Amino acid sequence: MSQLDDDRLFPVEGRSRDLARTLYGSVKDLPIVSPHGHTDPRWYAENEPFPDPAQLFVTPDHYVFRMLFSQGVSLDDLGVPRADGARAEIDGRKIWRLFAEHYYLFRGTPSRLWLDHSFEHVFGLTDRFGPESADAFYDHISDCLGRPEFRPRALFERFGIEVIATTESPLDDLRWHRMIRESGWGGRVVTAYRPDPVVDPEFEGFAENVARFGEMAGTDATTWDGYLEAHRNRRAYFKEFGATSSDHGHATARTECLPRSEAVALFEKALKGTCTAEEADAFRGHMLTEMARMSLDDGLVLQIHPGSRRNHSAPMMAQYGRDKGFDIPGRTDYVTALKPLLDEVGTDPRLSVILFTLDETVYARELAPLAGVYPSLKLGPAWWFHDSAEGMHRFREMTTETAGFYNTVGFNDDTRAFCSIPARHDVARRVDCAFLSTLVNTGRLAEDEAFDVAQELAYRLVKKAYRL
Amino acid sequence: MSQLDDDRLFPVEGRSRDLARTLYGSVKDLPIVSPHGHTDPRWYAENEPFPDPAQLFVTPDHYVFRMLFSQGVSLDDLGVPRADGARAEIDGRKIWRLFAEHYYLFRGTPSRLWLDHSFEHVFGLTDRFGPESADAFYDHISDCLGRPEFRPRALFERFGIEVIATTESPLDDLRWHRMIRESGWGGRVVTAYRPDPVVDPEFEGFAENVARFGEMAGTDATTWDGYLEAHRNRRAYFKEFGATSSDHGHATARTECLPRSEAVALFEKALKGTCTAEEADAFRGHMLTEMARMSLDDGLVLQIHPGSRRNHSAPMMAQYGRDKGFDIPGRTDYVTALKPLLDEVGTDPRLSVILFTLDETVYARELAPLAGVYPSLKLGPAWWFHDSAEGMHRFREMTTETAGFYNTVGFNDDTRAFCSIPARHDVARRVDCAFLSTLVNTGRLAEDEAFDVAQELAYRLVKKAYRL
Amino acid sequence: MSQLDDDRLFPVEGRSRDLARTLYGSVKDLPIVSPHGHTDPRWYAENEPFPDPAQLFVTPDHYVFRMLFSQGVSLDDLGVPRADGARAEIDGRKIWRLFAEHYYLFRGTPSRLWLDHSFEHVFGLTDRFGPESADAFYDHISDCLGRPEFRPRALFERFGIEVIATTESPLDDLRWHRMIRESGWGGRVVTAYRPDPVVDPEFEGFAENVARFGEMAGTDATTWDGYLEAHRNRRAYFKEFGATSSDHGHATARTECLPRSEAVALFEKALKGTCTAEEADAFRGHMLTEMARMSLDDGLVLQIHPGSRRNHSAPMMAQYGRDKGFDIPGRTDYVTALKPLLDEVGTDPRLSVILFTLDETVYARELAPLAGVYPSLKLGPAWWFHDSAEGMHRFREMTTETAGFYNTVGFNDDTRAFCSIPARHDVARRVDCAFLSTLVNTGRLAEDEAFDVAQELAYRLVKKAYRL
Repeated sequence: MSQLDDDRLFPVEGRSRDLARTLYGSVKDLPIVSPHGHTDPRWYAENEPFPDPAQLFVTPDHYVFRMLFSQGVSLDDLGVPRADGARAEIDGRKIWRLFAEHYYLFRGTPSRLWLDHSFEHVFGLTDRFGPESADAFYDHISDCLGRPEFRPRALFERFGIEVIATTESPLDDLRWHRMIRESGWGGRVVTAYRPDPVVDPEFEGFAENVARFGEMAGTDATTWDGYLEAHRNRRAYFKEFGATSSDHGHATARTECLPRSEAVALFEKALKGTCTAEEADAFRGHMLTEMARMSLDDGLVLQIHPGSRRNHSAPMMAQYGRDKGFDIPGRTDYVTALKPLLDEVGTDPRLSVILFTLDETVYARELAPLAGVYPSLKLGPAWWFHDSAEGMHRFREMTTETAGFYNTVGFNDDTRAFCSIPARHDVARRVDCAFLSTLVNTGRLAEDEAFDVAQELAYRLVKKAYRL
Repeated sequence: MSQLDDDRLFPVEGRSRDLARTLYGSVKDLPIVSPHGHTDPRWYAENEPFPDPAQLFVTPDHYVFRMLFSQGVSLDDLGVPRADGARAEIDGRKIWRLFAEHYYLFRGTPSRLWLDHSFEHVFGLTDRFGPESADAFYDHISDCLGRPEFRPRALFERFGIEVIATTESPLDDLRWHRMIRESGWGGRVVTAYRPDPVVDPEFEGFAENVARFGEMAGTDATTWDGYLEAHRNRRAYFKEFGATSSDHGHATARTECLPRSEAVALFEKALKGTCTAEEADAFRGHMLTEMARMSLDDGLVLQIHPGSRRNHSAPMMAQYGRDKGFDIPGRTDYVTALKPLLDEVGTDPRLSVILFTLDETVYARELAPLAGVYPSLKLGPAWWFHDSAEGMHRFREMTTETAGFYNTVGFNDDTRAFCSIPARHDVARRVDCAFLSTLVNTGRLAEDEAFDVAQELAYRLVKKAYRL
Repeated sequence: MSQLDDDRLFPVEGRSRDLARTLYGSVKDLPIVSPHGHTDPRWYAENEPFPDPAQLFVTPDHYVFRMLFSQGVSLDDLGVPRADGARAEIDGRKIWRLFAEHYYLFRGTPSRLWLDHSFEHVFGLTDRFGPESADAFYDHISDCLGRPEFRPRALFERFGIEVIATTESPLDDLRWHRMIRESGWGGRVVTAYRPDPVVDPEFEGFAENVARFGEMAGTDATTWDGYLEAHRNRRAYFKEFGATSSDHGHATARTECLPRSEAVALFEKALKGTCTAEEADAFRGHMLTEMARMSLDDGLVLQIHPGSRRNHSAPMMAQYGRDKGFDIPGRTDYVTALKPLLDEVGTDPRLSVILFTLDETVYARELAPLAGVYPSLKLGPAWWFHDSAEGMHRFREMTTETAGFYNTVGFNDDTRAFCSIPARHDVARRVDCAFLSTLVNTGRLAEDEAFDVAQELAYRLVKKAYRL
């Protein structure tokens, strides 16, 4: 029996539910546009089978292993690699059983919805997952993964993905993207420009990165002008592989618009490794404005994903390295932080800056008022810990009245969990239709308008905002 | 066909909706008490016709033109005046068509509700507004505006306004208020004392303002004692024209209670224009305490509207001047900020201070706990970007459990958009009745009490709190 | 007629309400586990009758008298003692009538629910409380209090309390706990270790407290090693009287993990009374880490209750002393504040730290992400001003998706209002069942799982988290 309620995430009662269901019916089969995410382009390039179920669902998914770790399961027993790459447990079935024993921990979480949806829609598994069904699930999924219709390109097509963006560093040679293109496969996979290694003075190996950056771009990136030129060159190169956006994940939303002499001085300190923390932060902030200026020329959309205090646990960082579930949001200011960039280029309607946040208190207080007046600003969807039914609902409730729908940009799945992509878009479409139904049933929107907005939120706004 | 659902903003289903409707029926026709707003007293004094539809609904309404600007429409094309007063576009019909083409942007916003309500209730227009109906609406509204029953006083009476407050600077001679009074017209229009130009050392022309202030008050306001005396005199003068409140819109809620010598020193620096930003802020903070002391004597209610970072965009400020939709809220602390004033006068039940906020995170955390214990403190309604169905609902949900209903003060429309006044009060009455219905239907309030509280929220509390 | 709706706090309509009712039916009669609170152990030790109704319901309940004070009723007239212990009004009936006259102020507040529930369930009073019924209520309650079945132990048993924790300072000799134990009574009353007087350098009489602390512990607590040993000894002594937890109510969540030499230096300054505010804060923060280290050895659960700005009004503090309703929450950071402690011991699954907050903005942003990964961290329930239907609902909505249910710890009543204990647990059980019903009816949880989780939230999680 299916674990998925056909009416999940809709209002519970009567005509609210009815209209939500009808609205959802009008958008559920629209193609998936995934303008920002972290799937591996190598999957699409090589089209090799995915490995075992544990490596597909457990080991790489920080939502999953952080929850198990929080209840005392060790990362070693889950096969999560150590910082040196070693994996203590490599038996997929043992990892899978441990996951199944703790599956009850996900009650009430979005991971539960994504996983149940993936099990059923991708693998046809409708029993409840848990200790009793663990082996059967493992065997069935393993079996599927060996078949051609479960290879990455086949799933991409089955998922109805019209276009998906990956995220690469300027130091990436985009070989997988080239290989996809040269393969003749029709799937549209584009890259995005994520320059952290060469704009963050505190990134490991910054000076070496910049040197290599210059080599790749054919400029001397150790001079300020050459460095900016290298960005322009690499952005152009990324555009050849479909990029329509850059992405920036600083700890804060700080921007700066420094006089050239100050920017040059900071850059030189950064190359020497002598920036203070404050100077490094100012440099990162200034580079956002430089990126915005380049966007005016080359049309790349600028995404800002600020506010994560990454790798919060020093001992876990030492043992397991980055991205092990210890990224914790904190308060993030936008009003003061964005002013330098906005004063410089913010009223230019050619510029498109998409703002994300992990601090929901800014939705109604700062982000909606900003996006509701600056023509360059749009609001990205509820992000990360807030990429959930309640999170999306709060996003709409707290942004719509001031920013409207048209200063938002549809949904991003932002994931590396490939099988969860349809599930995540499905959650977003359901929550948006529930929200629209409530607006109609409380006299805030006409029914025909709700159908139109549903199309916008599920499909049209994202294509327009990301220029896809 | 009406664009307005009779049951708008009520709970969607069954008995929640039924009770909300009945509660609303008991308050919907109560007189409007508007204790704080920004309509122009000249309207009531001269009683001239309002100009064309664009100048009534678009050009002066920052909610409207900021949304259009956010989607790339230029303020020039909307006829919004430049800082020098020049208007690029003066053809009302062209502005109106541009507005109509972009009316879909307001889907899901309170502006849409206010506008549809104004079109229907003020002008009898029930078609959907948009590009197809733009000219018909323009013609009809233009025609109406020429008729006597659409002049300001007639509308005032039709709207059922029992009393409305405007807001004036101490430098205002209140000539329009005098003219209203001398006209013999029965409408009750009162002023309110908004002394920013003479209490904010950073206000343009502060020293000249203070000099003129003294002249108007008949004291030498360039001495500290004369300055305080000038306030007392002007407050008394404002009271002659019905004022029952003062209003203060500082960037923060900071208060100070300085020793006289320090206050005098800051005042002298302020007159010389040598205050640092910190000193100017301290002076403004101290003046709130001085105003509170005067309130103990003259009974004026003290309103504090903090937290707006005004004129956020430097280029827009330079081109278009103040109040062009670029006022962005920011985090605002109250607990520490209000302590000096509260330690001085906060437990005196004769004092009445009404607190507003643009930072909803303080509702449950700071404002309700403060108003729930200090006899001088009351909570103003959801303000500005939060003057909306969701915003009002969050206000009640986050303040009622700690502050109750009786430490709140009913509704303020706080608007210069005259035709929207009935619409705004209607939204507040509907949302409050919806909230009360939910309390009754979840066993938190008896039904007869809900009817009593509905009267309080719609009519009685505001009169009591504002001493009207 | 009962003032209590049988279906109170459930969703209003149809099947949501039905399932909530059924879920509630499965947990409503479970024993009460009260792991953190402020009832007086002397009550259970001496088992004397409670005094008059006013002293039971009004004078000691800051929720009650702060609301009356906020509307101009003086604390003197309510019989609230002055700082010197004097009570201006000692006539219980007069106080009670004043309370009844203002009972309407509690409309929509949790106090109203708790009081109505206590009146009906403890005293059998089903009329509406107010001026007309005030005397009858007073007489009836007075009469009851004289009867054996209303003495503390009888009520304890009638309330179905399986275990209750009180809170004592290390300077307490636990005489009442000893008396309870020696009485042979079967009620389980345990203590908890609250060391503020000896870990907070700014506490009145800190140095004397530490000296006495050493005497009680049989060590020289004026040396750092002796001081730590005294903590270990007193914690062991508290464990003899059932303690399973310590509790810490600092103004912030700051922790420190200082080198020994720095800790010693701060301790010595603290004893001399020469700590700056910053040093005192650092010392308190360091002591949290010391307490966590001791918890690894002795198994006490560490509770952190930060964020209250206590005794906000200086004049009220001077006249009436501490805990008179003037404790106001403020913004509280956890991400940075907890890092030193977490880096030291946070990934050890033997440690159990329960975090509380008065700043709801951290639920989704900081606390759920932290508790959703650190095995040592759990989230305490909605606290103080948020111990209410809306507050609890927000807690679940904002923590469940990231932390799940199993990183939360059930309910704490945290009260000194004895008669309200069943009412408070009842509210928590109702709100949780309403939340679970909504999850089921929106397809986020299976029905059988909801029944299981309901048991966890009402009974099992609290016992596990507090090791009771």
